[in-house]
Amino acid sequence: MSDTIGFVGLGSMGLPLAINLLESGYELRVYNRTAAKAQSLVEKGAIAVDAPADVVEPGGVVISILSNDQALEEVVLGEQGLLSRLAADSIHLSMSTVAPTTAQKLAAQHTQQGAHYLAAPVFGRPDAVAARKLWITLAGNDVAKARVRPLLETVGQGVFDFGNEAGAANVVKLAGNFLIISAIEAMAEAFTLAEKNGVDRTQIANLFGQTLFACPIYQNYGRMIAQQQYEPAGFKLALGLKDVTLALQTANASQMPLPLASLLHDRLIAAVANGKGDIDWTGLALTISEEAGLKRGSGEG
Amino acid sequence: MSDTIGFVGLGSMGLPLAINLLESGYELRVYNRTAAKAQSLVEKGAIAVDAPADVVEPGGVVISILSNDQALEEVVLGEQGLLSRLAADSIHLSMSTVAPTTAQKLAAQHTQQGAHYLAAPVFGRPDAVAARKLWITLAGNDVAKARVRPLLETVGQGVFDFGNEAGAANVVKLAGNFLIISAIEAMAEAFTLAEKNGVDRTQIANLFGQTLFACPIYQNYGRMIAQQQYEPAGFKLALGLKDVTLALQTANASQMPLPLASLLHDRLIAAVANGKGDIDWTGLALTISEEAGLKRGSGEG
Amino acid sequence: MSDTIGFVGLGSMGLPLAINLLESGYELRVYNRTAAKAQSLVEKGAIAVDAPADVVEPGGVVISILSNDQALEEVVLGEQGLLSRLAADSIHLSMSTVAPTTAQKLAAQHTQQGAHYLAAPVFGRPDAVAARKLWITLAGNDVAKARVRPLLETVGQGVFDFGNEAGAANVVKLAGNFLIISAIEAMAEAFTLAEKNGVDRTQIANLFGQTLFACPIYQNYGRMIAQQQYEPAGFKLALGLKDVTLALQTANASQMPLPLASLLHDRLIAAVANGKGDIDWTGLALTISEEAGLKRGSGEG
Amino acid sequence: MSDTIGFVGLGSMGLPLAINLLESGYELRVYNRTAAKAQSLVEKGAIAVDAPADVVEPGGVVISILSNDQALEEVVLGEQGLLSRLAADSIHLSMSTVAPTTAQKLAAQHTQQGAHYLAAPVFGRPDAVAARKLWITLAGNDVAKARVRPLLETVGQGVFDFGNEAGAANVVKLAGNFLIISAIEAMAEAFTLAEKNGVDRTQIANLFGQTLFACPIYQNYGRMIAQQQYEPAGFKLALGLKDVTLALQTANASQMPLPLASLLHDRLIAAVANGKGDIDWTGLALTISEEAGLKRGSGEG
Repeated sequence: MSDTIGFVGLGSMGLPLAINLLESGYELRVYNRTAAKAQSLVEKGAIAVDAPADVVEPGGVVISILSNDQALEEVVLGEQGLLSRLAADSIHLSMSTVAPTTAQKLAAQHTQQGAHYLAAPVFGRPDAVAARKLWITLAGNDVAKARVRPLLETVGQGVFDFGNEAGAANVVKLAGNFLIISAIEAMAEAFTLAEKNGVDRTQIANLFGQTLFACPIYQNYGRMIAQQQYEPAGFKLALGLKDVTLALQTANASQMPLPLASLLHDRLIAAVANGKGDIDWTGLALTISEEAGLKRGSGEG
Repeated sequence: MSDTIGFVGLGSMGLPLAINLLESGYELRVYNRTAAKAQSLVEKGAIAVDAPADVVEPGGVVISILSNDQALEEVVLGEQGLLSRLAADSIHLSMSTVAPTTAQKLAAQHTQQGAHYLAAPVFGRPDAVAARKLWITLAGNDVAKARVRPLLETVGQGVFDFGNEAGAANVVKLAGNFLIISAIEAMAEAFTLAEKNGVDRTQIANLFGQTLFACPIYQNYGRMIAQQQYEPAGFKLALGLKDVTLALQTANASQMPLPLASLLHDRLIAAVANGKGDIDWTGLALTISEEAGLKRGSGEG
Repeated sequence: MSDTIGFVGLGSMGLPLAINLLESGYELRVYNRTAAKAQSLVEKGAIAVDAPADVVEPGGVVISILSNDQALEEVVLGEQGLLSRLAADSIHLSMSTVAPTTAQKLAAQHTQQGAHYLAAPVFGRPDAVAARKLWITLAGNDVAKARVRPLLETVGQGVFDFGNEAGAANVVKLAGNFLIISAIEAMAEAFTLAEKNGVDRTQIANLFGQTLFACPIYQNYGRMIAQQQYEPAGFKLALGLKDVTLALQTANASQMPLPLASLLHDRLIAAVANGKGDIDWTGLALTISEEAGLKRGSGEG
Repeated sequence: MSDTIGFVGLGSMGLPLAINLLESGYELRVYNRTAAKAQSLVEKGAIAVDAPADVVEPGGVVISILSNDQALEEVVLGEQGLLSRLAADSIHLSMSTVAPTTAQKLAAQHTQQGAHYLAAPVFGRPDAVAARKLWITLAGNDVAKARVRPLLETVGQGVFDFGNEAGAANVVKLAGNFLIISAIEAMAEAFTLAEKNGVDRTQIANLFGQTLFACPIYQNYGRMIAQQQYEPAGFKLALGLKDVTLALQTANASQMPLPLASLLHDRLIAAVANGKGDIDWTGLALTISEEAGLKRGSGEG
């Protein structure tokens, strides 16, 4: 695929992703609400434009990666939004973590114009983007998915196809973030129980990270929770709250409880209400330390 | 170490462990409450005796591996119990999952007689025992630990030393089982949310087991939860309840809440009250399926 | 006040309320989506009309009492809705249990047309309406409140003024329903604990209803929970879920957790998912009986 | 009944109770671990003794009212304890809030000596004792209950008989304290939701205290929670934690979850771990204020 790619959203995830694409030889037309963020890309050969619609080339691919549902809807549906220009055979590769219902609604609107909306939310923090180590979930039209797959394989280490309904990939993404924050809470409780009983937090984290839970989430987050190092944030606690809230709304709509998600929601919203929204979401562990009467968390500043 | 080893407890964990020791060349004196279970070991060369005390040789090592605190206390403190015979330089290697307070109390009683109580609870299901793949936590007197380490390395794939206080190893074991049952609940909620939204349970389990959570607990238990196959039990749900209850009691004693453990406790006790105590503890996932109005769990009979 | 009153919503609460007004000498113009429900009122002298807008008289009072936010918004904002006719000095007395944000939005839209939106959600089940025993919360413009007060005192036993912001009365109403469902859960757990320990449910309900909790909620709901009589529904469990969900959304918007409301939400949504949405909301007690392994609840059919 | 009564336990509940009995004409032999507390009673005519056993007269009645299970067991089973002297036809009227299992065990031991153990835990704070307004639950042998009833009616406003098993009265007492602390949590969440949305805490407390919840618990505790006045303690938060823990242990033994009690337990133990054990148990409301990002609670000092 040698087309020029449209690219919207140069946040902490979008910027390194755009750089990777440029370095792989793709030409980019980029838009970001704060225009200054495009500067480094322009120096690498990208073309910066003044409105989302201007990144669209007829029949081409547009990537968007934004922080929440509202930002995505603005870029797509707002004045000079993507949808005013997307037409036959255009593909909108939407990599944001948003509600499945948002994906379904947007997908239907794209279809009405003959364009394709592909949901492709990703797992990985900014350093994983830079290292082309993203895990990518994908859902939508089969032909469109086949067209973008080479591009996705350039920037990720694996692509997982969840069928034709765009919302499915978003369900999987929300489920994944819920699994991660659940593991954070579980480790925080376990390590604090250990600490209160004279066992070193790091030693117990090491044991589990080397054995039963020898996988990235438990190893990397386990280290942070053991060392109580919650800043700078790789993924902000307030964004974790957003995603758990989306998971709960999705559960509500499908008529089922998510009791563990409810527990996590309540603890995350209390953390945000107490000024911890900008620390890393592993900082949820501060809550359990505080409840235990321990006040040593490094994230409290 | 070429001594004869005393061995008490031939349950689903103890029996394959004893076989391994015999096959590695150790001589065993074995006791089990239900004597018939010793038969296969006797055929392999073990000596069966009629009381716990009779497995003890002066200055030797005794291994016990029992199902709960009460069984351990009976074997140690009951009539013709181990403690009536354990004396100077004897080592009691206690591999059961019991309360840290039980370990502390027993350790003090052993010390009074000049004997050593080592806590060595293990991670691994019966098939892991047979494969000599146990992960072993260890705490107690340093000299005693050094004496048993070759033995432990024969039957496990790793030994983790948590210092001199026997209870510490039990805290770590309870923390580990709590991490596992937390992961079970999280996966059950996530997979059921997926199912209710049209995503295949197995496909989502595979994604996470290959990526963020590429570790034994998520892979093996994830498969069971995806396939809703909760029998036969590798580890019974009622034992999971026992261990979560021990974790909560330990937290109470150290004055801290474990809100996730409380949630799990309540769900596990309801499952036991409804006749599910003998299915595998991954069967906790039935609760979330039932709450979601889905009735397909295979464990329900 | 001798004006004709517009009246929209003839459900289980609206119908007896309209009858009371007719019997007190008010003239009514009534609208209901299912027109047949107006028949008994027409026989008593009311005038039935074909669209919400047709109940409005210039400068008059319109009462609406509907089952949820969506129904209210349709009646107000839909085709031939109330707002197409409400003008200077008109008063819309909105007695539905809806989100505070819905009240705020509608109030602002009324103000733009010179009309007044008064929030006046009520406490009381249908039999309390019939007996003119409603407790009424009220919020909005002071002059408008003074105009409707005589009318409200005709149908209720008490009116509580919560100031000028319409949403405030809705916050109070949601808080009240949350207090009630919390009491239901607490009694269900307490009575089931008693039952499991050989104490009669009715005897313990009587004790508390006569002493510490000698008030309507504990006496009336306590009797239902003791006798496990959950049908016919005075207030449907699914409506209870709606109100707890509104309380949680209000808490989310004001950035605070409501952990007890989260617990109740999860139990209510599971009950609805299992076909119990139409029994009385005291039927939440079935959940605790079932979790305890008791299967005698009368509401199960 | 004109016998001399033995009386053990002169804490905040026991002392005013003993005064009432003296003033009603009973003669008392009193024992308290801290002997000085008996001084004021001696001035009123009581006889102070040096050991629990010394308050016992053959065939007489002994009242005990102590702070927890351990204190009660010491007084009964310890050196020179009550049980060393209680014999045929003696009645031990045990008014402490203890575990049902403790009551059952002690009842059996009394029976072996021909004595009667009556469980008679009470509802009421110290001011209610002084005003002879206690509500008394009663369980045990019928003849013994008939003998003590006149005495109980002298100090309480109502006696409720829960049959012959001593533990039953303790189950009822634990259930009652659980209902109270549940109401505290519910009010704290409701009032804080109101506050965060611009509604005055006192105004909402007044509404509910005058209407749906016009009963002592909601009126008195509602006022404290509205005004955020949690000191001095009428009933200490740490004692509330003790009672919720006993309720959970009773539920565990009877194999059922108490999810609301678990929630309350976790919040109470965190409050105790953070130095709030000595404020009134309504101070649990501080937790919800803090989680909401509000820091005005008067109990934080």
